[in-house]
Amino acid sequence: VKVLTLARDLQRRRARERQGLFVAEGVRAVEELLRSTLRIRAVLTSPALASAPRGRALVDELRARGVIAQEVREADFASAADTDSPQGVLAIAEVPRRTLESLELPVRARLLVLDGIQDPGNAGTLLRTAAALGAAATVALPGTVDVWNAKVVRSAMGSLFHGAVYSSTWEALDTFLRDQSIELWGADRAGEPLGALAPPARLALVVGNEGSGLSERARVRLARRVSIPIAADVDSLNVAVAAGILLYELRA
Amino acid sequence: VKVLTLARDLQRRRARERQGLFVAEGVRAVEELLRSTLRIRAVLTSPALASAPRGRALVDELRARGVIAQEVREADFASAADTDSPQGVLAIAEVPRRTLESLELPVRARLLVLDGIQDPGNAGTLLRTAAALGAAATVALPGTVDVWNAKVVRSAMGSLFHGAVYSSTWEALDTFLRDQSIELWGADRAGEPLGALAPPARLALVVGNEGSGLSERARVRLARRVSIPIAADVDSLNVAVAAGILLYELRA
Repeated sequence: VKVLTLARDLQRRRARERQGLFVAEGVRAVEELLRSTLRIRAVLTSPALASAPRGRALVDELRARGVIAQEVREADFASAADTDSPQGVLAIAEVPRRTLESLELPVRARLLVLDGIQDPGNAGTLLRTAAALGAAATVALPGTVDVWNAKVVRSAMGSLFHGAVYSSTWEALDTFLRDQSIELWGADRAGEPLGALAPPARLALVVGNEGSGLSERARVRLARRVSIPIAADVDSLNVAVAAGILLYELRA
Repeated sequence: VKVLTLARDLQRRRARERQGLFVAEGVRAVEELLRSTLRIRAVLTSPALASAPRGRALVDELRARGVIAQEVREADFASAADTDSPQGVLAIAEVPRRTLESLELPVRARLLVLDGIQDPGNAGTLLRTAAALGAAATVALPGTVDVWNAKVVRSAMGSLFHGAVYSSTWEALDTFLRDQSIELWGADRAGEPLGALAPPARLALVVGNEGSGLSERARVRLARRVSIPIAADVDSLNVAVAAGILLYELRA
């Protein structure tokens, strides 16, 4: 019952921040968590888990790793779950304590900065895209959805556990960019078209809110605004698709 | 009541196919629909719509265009809506009758082909990405989610109404590709790395299922398999992000 209560409590961002814990739900997310160095505190299961072969394999793996899973009834599990059709497993793990100052960068490096991303699916896909395309880190600024939100965790598909993901203020980011000689570019519909631009050795790319784009606080800091040429009758690209194209084109 | 019943009925793919109708839900989707050439059959609203200025503006626009909206109670609207927090407006419109044979292509052209895409959000983002990056058409093959599904309609953000989206069998696509001298390339983790490849004048890019990738029916037809180099510890890119990078890199 205690694990269940904790899992329910961690649905709120405030509780996650106070306790330094988050929830990874679903077979795949828990598998990825086991493959990471993050510390698992507790696991909650429901009878549904053992109905699929992959679920049974996960139960065996948890047992082999000495992780004690507590089983609750389907209805109780659903009350702590974030998905509509839960697979019957969630893990509570510790949010890694990472600060930007401890990040060591190679000579040529790319960073992705999230400025007011609101949709958890977009945030997760952005984390996954940055990790896949070799970004050294992703930095989430105030106004962005909590990256330890259950939906972000699921759509990041493990990149949140292995990758370097930081929450930061603008001021801490300013210091880091200056100390590490990193240039800040922003993705903006009205920016210079991608293609003719030669990126610097160290580049941080900032992407803005799905509806309103980059914040004023981002705009005043940019060395350059860059755009992806798109058809005139289309409003915009999805933010994760845009970040993918930019990170690929401007790769280190 | 008749519009309400019809809207509820159109939640099922079979009903949409039989009637040749689909539902666009939400202020933005209905605004986009009004800007397109698609024929609107009926509009359903709830009191919630008039509570936002943009909603009231839409009511005025519908009236000015002679579209008669039927208002129902909140609970009834919710029973026909696809979203959890409905904005109180949906339109029922005719699925355009488009066949591949009627599509006229420029000398250099790009097409996107969907082979078993299952997630409606991914399908919608793929349609939006293809339209934005100048693809002449997107073709949905059997095994792909219905592109007139309410979630696809929403995440395509209008590109489904203006753009050239076709549903096709493999056989009809074969004929079209041959008659139009279009080469078929597939996105595949094990393919040749992007970068060294010079694309042909007319290229169709096929992307596969989120979990299992390209189908066997796709594989046997490919002139080339192409991959985006990604970090070893990341499983894959999101399919819409991958398509975005490939369509941008291989643009006409």
